[in-house]
Amino acid sequence: MQTYQAEIYVTLRPSVLDPAGTAVQSSLNQMGYDTVSQVRIGKYIQVTLAAANDEQARQQLDRICDQLLANPVIETYRFDLNAVATV
Amino acid sequence: MQTYQAEIYVTLRPSVLDPAGTAVQSSLNQMGYDTVSQVRIGKYIQVTLAAANDEQARQQLDRICDQLLANPVIETYRFDLNAVATV
Repeated sequence: MQTYQAEIYVTLRPSVLDPAGTAVQSSLNQMGYDTVSQVRIGKYIQVTLAAANDEQARQQLDRICDQLLANPVIETYRFDLNAVATV
Repeated sequence: MQTYQAEIYVTLRPSVLDPAGTAVQSSLNQMGYDTVSQVRIGKYIQVTLAAANDEQARQQLDRICDQLLANPVIETYRFDLNAVATV
């Protein structure tokens, strides 16, 4: 088994409104950062998992994202996978 | 002015407990993903801003992160900066 470190980025689909992002943007504008024109807030999830190989790790991460980490109706995800150590 | 797209990653410091990550990890273990050994949840923030040059954009982002996006007591941040268009 190989240990992998995955970095998962979950973002709202472009068509979905992001009220939290809009609130942060207007706060920044009020604080004087008036060149900030858009803010979108997503999730950044670091997962450590073991798998036999890259392919299996990717398949497992796809299932994990679809089932728990992202809501496929309004969110999309992508991930980077790095092998860290052989157990 | 140049338009920049920044991708900001805000994560809890390693010494800070992450109860949400622990809850997700134990959910995944219960769902059968028993090779998942750690989950840490952070924020992924996409910011579009205008600045005269890379250096100014980076300085502005550092201030924005310190003042609003990250809590420096418990969180750290890093960001990637990409120029997207000249206005």
